[in-house]
Amino acid sequence: MSKALKVGVIGLGFFGSRHARIYNDHPAAELIAVCDSDPERTALVARETGAQGFNDLRALLALPDLDAVSICLPDRLHEEAAVAAAEAGKAILLEKPLAHDSATARRIVVAVEKAGVRFMVGHILRFDPRYVQTFHAAAPERLGAPIHLRAKRNGIRATARRLGSSSSILFYMGVHDVDAMQWIARSRINRVYAQKVELLGTGNEDALYAVVNFENGAIGNIDYSWAWPDGLMNGFRSSLEIVGTKSATYLDCTDQGFYVVEDGGTSGGDTHLWPEINGRIVGDLADELDHFVKATLSGKSYLQDYREAFDAIPVLDALAQSARAGLPVEVVR
Amino acid sequence: MSKALKVGVIGLGFFGSRHARIYNDHPAAELIAVCDSDPERTALVARETGAQGFNDLRALLALPDLDAVSICLPDRLHEEAAVAAAEAGKAILLEKPLAHDSATARRIVVAVEKAGVRFMVGHILRFDPRYVQTFHAAAPERLGAPIHLRAKRNGIRATARRLGSSSSILFYMGVHDVDAMQWIARSRINRVYAQKVELLGTGNEDALYAVVNFENGAIGNIDYSWAWPDGLMNGFRSSLEIVGTKSATYLDCTDQGFYVVEDGGTSGGDTHLWPEINGRIVGDLADELDHFVKATLSGKSYLQDYREAFDAIPVLDALAQSARAGLPVEVVR
Amino acid sequence: MSKALKVGVIGLGFFGSRHARIYNDHPAAELIAVCDSDPERTALVARETGAQGFNDLRALLALPDLDAVSICLPDRLHEEAAVAAAEAGKAILLEKPLAHDSATARRIVVAVEKAGVRFMVGHILRFDPRYVQTFHAAAPERLGAPIHLRAKRNGIRATARRLGSSSSILFYMGVHDVDAMQWIARSRINRVYAQKVELLGTGNEDALYAVVNFENGAIGNIDYSWAWPDGLMNGFRSSLEIVGTKSATYLDCTDQGFYVVEDGGTSGGDTHLWPEINGRIVGDLADELDHFVKATLSGKSYLQDYREAFDAIPVLDALAQSARAGLPVEVVR
Amino acid sequence: MSKALKVGVIGLGFFGSRHARIYNDHPAAELIAVCDSDPERTALVARETGAQGFNDLRALLALPDLDAVSICLPDRLHEEAAVAAAEAGKAILLEKPLAHDSATARRIVVAVEKAGVRFMVGHILRFDPRYVQTFHAAAPERLGAPIHLRAKRNGIRATARRLGSSSSILFYMGVHDVDAMQWIARSRINRVYAQKVELLGTGNEDALYAVVNFENGAIGNIDYSWAWPDGLMNGFRSSLEIVGTKSATYLDCTDQGFYVVEDGGTSGGDTHLWPEINGRIVGDLADELDHFVKATLSGKSYLQDYREAFDAIPVLDALAQSARAGLPVEVVR
Repeated sequence: MSKALKVGVIGLGFFGSRHARIYNDHPAAELIAVCDSDPERTALVARETGAQGFNDLRALLALPDLDAVSICLPDRLHEEAAVAAAEAGKAILLEKPLAHDSATARRIVVAVEKAGVRFMVGHILRFDPRYVQTFHAAAPERLGAPIHLRAKRNGIRATARRLGSSSSILFYMGVHDVDAMQWIARSRINRVYAQKVELLGTGNEDALYAVVNFENGAIGNIDYSWAWPDGLMNGFRSSLEIVGTKSATYLDCTDQGFYVVEDGGTSGGDTHLWPEINGRIVGDLADELDHFVKATLSGKSYLQDYREAFDAIPVLDALAQSARAGLPVEVVR
Repeated sequence: MSKALKVGVIGLGFFGSRHARIYNDHPAAELIAVCDSDPERTALVARETGAQGFNDLRALLALPDLDAVSICLPDRLHEEAAVAAAEAGKAILLEKPLAHDSATARRIVVAVEKAGVRFMVGHILRFDPRYVQTFHAAAPERLGAPIHLRAKRNGIRATARRLGSSSSILFYMGVHDVDAMQWIARSRINRVYAQKVELLGTGNEDALYAVVNFENGAIGNIDYSWAWPDGLMNGFRSSLEIVGTKSATYLDCTDQGFYVVEDGGTSGGDTHLWPEINGRIVGDLADELDHFVKATLSGKSYLQDYREAFDAIPVLDALAQSARAGLPVEVVR
Repeated sequence: MSKALKVGVIGLGFFGSRHARIYNDHPAAELIAVCDSDPERTALVARETGAQGFNDLRALLALPDLDAVSICLPDRLHEEAAVAAAEAGKAILLEKPLAHDSATARRIVVAVEKAGVRFMVGHILRFDPRYVQTFHAAAPERLGAPIHLRAKRNGIRATARRLGSSSSILFYMGVHDVDAMQWIARSRINRVYAQKVELLGTGNEDALYAVVNFENGAIGNIDYSWAWPDGLMNGFRSSLEIVGTKSATYLDCTDQGFYVVEDGGTSGGDTHLWPEINGRIVGDLADELDHFVKATLSGKSYLQDYREAFDAIPVLDALAQSARAGLPVEVVR
Repeated sequence: MSKALKVGVIGLGFFGSRHARIYNDHPAAELIAVCDSDPERTALVARETGAQGFNDLRALLALPDLDAVSICLPDRLHEEAAVAAAEAGKAILLEKPLAHDSATARRIVVAVEKAGVRFMVGHILRFDPRYVQTFHAAAPERLGAPIHLRAKRNGIRATARRLGSSSSILFYMGVHDVDAMQWIARSRINRVYAQKVELLGTGNEDALYAVVNFENGAIGNIDYSWAWPDGLMNGFRSSLEIVGTKSATYLDCTDQGFYVVEDGGTSGGDTHLWPEINGRIVGDLADELDHFVKATLSGKSYLQDYREAFDAIPVLDALAQSARAGLPVEVVR
């Protein structure tokens, strides 16, 4: 390995702190800078990783040696950071969602394209063996024409309470499945109808159900909730299925293969997304960052074109609009 | 047991032939007559059970000793048979759906009420331990207020092909879950939006997805398909979940607990609905008929009031209308 | 139904009280007497069912009208009750195990045969759709020759604590699987090796593992435990698999298809053995008693020959002896 | 990254070819040489990876730049290759099992220790999130004292046929679980009893069942088979459970979360061990090699001490001896 990618991480919450640890352990990456508006958090991660700590992202971006950044900020802060990083000429890994609405997403894309920098959106499911194998099994020659797709992403109410109004069910969780459905169906969603409900008072919707149409004629079913009681085994449920004219394929993330039984009940744990084993974070997130590092260094294409990530945002906008209006809405692109 | 219920079965297809066998094995029932328009089928069941065979249901209904009938005919023949049975003064177990549209359902109910006969609709899920326990776990004091409900009923394309245009996905399968959702939510559906798709050319819809609203404010998600390839393990998938403000409960009928492994693959089998073991049909269907026999003899109320079965039909009509129109539809009752 | 079977239940603990309720609800049975050494328990069940209460089983057996009895006493009291019932000329349903050792089992069988009464041992798995379908799938023409069988029956430590020294892991739980393995393999176990462990101080073994040989050359693996923490989902785990030269079949009772999610965790419930739904006990136990009533009335053979139940007891004796001695033991018959 | 580890792979079968691909994709490794006795296979892998091809392992080991080797040969060829690699001063990753008997294992260890080279045995379960999390959940402060452990590893008969007499069920599959049980129980097996069966004529045992004792007083149950029909979903079943005085923990690898449904049935796929997604091999095997590369470069300890791998071999010897003799055998160390 002749050269390592010099990386910074902006935003050191749940995801950013994991990005920092993964880069720090990656042989082709060198974590040189981390940044968070919270000085204590910054100092902690800087101390753990040996990276330089910043509280101002522009100071971090001014580092001349810096090659690339992970942006792991709340949704509404994506634009400022991404545009600044683009203008600073850095390769960017932006945690999903690309942005919290279509107009913002478009401005980010314009800035990135204008600056000519590398740009990848962190759609982790593109690195999950269950989703990737479903994608391959749904190739037209195996699946035939898609007939119907169903996607579920359900979590616990503790998550909704923790995020409060800083995100929403659609942009925090929903973007995963809208991207996955369009990717796996090889087609875009062009019409949606959604209903939501708010009874728990978490500052967010409790749940949103939708029926959607794809350009290729398939129909889709979307099931989002973070209203489950906190005792839900493993804390979340996600599944996706696609039935085609020739075959069908599905994935179900309910079973993680690992259980602890105590007097009070049986519980589980994550064995796919970002399990920490042997002192390191492995699994999908680590694989995503590995790809970002290698493809940035080699100049090869990222697995997900950012235009596909962009294609999910107008669908989320339409879903939100339909849930408010109570009527079907065409997706405007 | 001082007296047995003298029973006849009208329609001897998949369900009718099972009704006949179950009655024939029931100590408080006496199967005295069976009827089908197909003389060979009638002769076969008559020979197996010792019951008298008829090809005309009115001849069967004219038997003076006959106390009760099971009607297991195709949906569109329900009215004629049910009205005739009511006029003949017989207690009636009518296989679901009550009827193939609201107007017909209403006429059947009027005839039954006018005749003053006992009347039960065969909603088998009301006798499935998974659904019944879900119903009890969803009692308001345990569940709190319902937030969202999701129901799935998916089968294989062989079923759609076999039925052709004699039924529809909504009336053959969908009625189960519309009834179950309203029963478990303790609330009625009052607004629906549906989309369907037809690519397989089976003479039926392939799938129908819907989002619905309940009178109590909860939202619902409906996932119906009989487009799955015929190799789907156990041949169907059904599940139902309800999340409330205090707890949540769900059931999933994917796992039947029994598997056969051969060189060509792993397959399963039914262990709940109507498994045949030790030469008899047991499980939910047998329990439903046991209830019908006992409650008819004792004069006690049937577990499902037929007005609840009736309440499902306008929802199905609205779903069909919405799927055609592509717009939300209010349920007219 | 010309005549009902007049039944009594001896022993009104967990199983006996359920037997009483099931008979009381059965159209071909008439529960006329119940008996327990505890006067309060007797009075309670007598009041609930309308049956006459006894505290002395010989007084119950002296009822001239009584046709049949269920004996649901602790293992070590089986002999006295079964012999007395046989001498009184009653048909007998004896809850498993037949007896707590081979010598006692033999004395019971001798008494029954001498008296010429009907005799069935309550091996409930013979009425479980998962086990019965496994039995049929393991028919020689489908399975070929059996190669290996594995049976698991694991429960929670609360059960071991509750039973204390009144039963043992082998006779309370183990008899199920020894009977099931011999039944499904169509062959008897003739050599065993077992190890047990006692760390929890429940007054019972915590667990017993064994490797066994069948007369037909197959090998078997036995996994018994009631050492699991009380929070084990559904409270037990049982599974059985058999691999043959042509195919294999297995059952797994882990999944019951029904779940409740609360803040503290996810729990389940029984949907097969003796679920109480709609105010009645249904499932395997109800089906077992239904068979006992009908076959006793009709004079037809019971599904399980008591000699097969008897064949399990020497295997349990050998397992216990091997666990004590730490050496393989031949089964003496 | 200042320096990459120069690696060679010896043996290019199922595992060796995967090792080669993984190293070739690893930023801190440089695959410089591959070796197989089959010239075509060698040429193929050399062409795909750009490494230099050898047919003689001593020629490969003579490369002065070479830092480390993966040895992926059949069990009986481990000694020659490992001793030669040790004498050549290379760091060694030896695919499990360490050797095909204790005496050979000892000679390998002696050679490695004499040469003073780094030495790791490829026990992949030490890198599987399900097994590693089970190990951590079974820490004494959480689990208490171990009471009983059960391990299952079952595969299809095609594997047994493919390997013929070149390996055995104990050394090919069994070594995984003997190592895992001793690791997770924090105790060694000191007494075993096993029975095996051979009906399929694959050139190998069909199955082996065993009951074992641990030094700490726990008992163990071992369930090995490669007699399953080839249609077993995912091709294998593995599970492991440990019940302790304070809690219990288990893992079950049956569910891989991914399914394909076709007319002929439902099948699955690997999502943990070595799934190939996005053109690369990820999962446990890739993580194991990543650890080998990094720890070799950094000089840090390998996660598994080779003495633990060595500790498994005498248990396998004892199991084989017991299965032949039909008696319990003490493990000789």
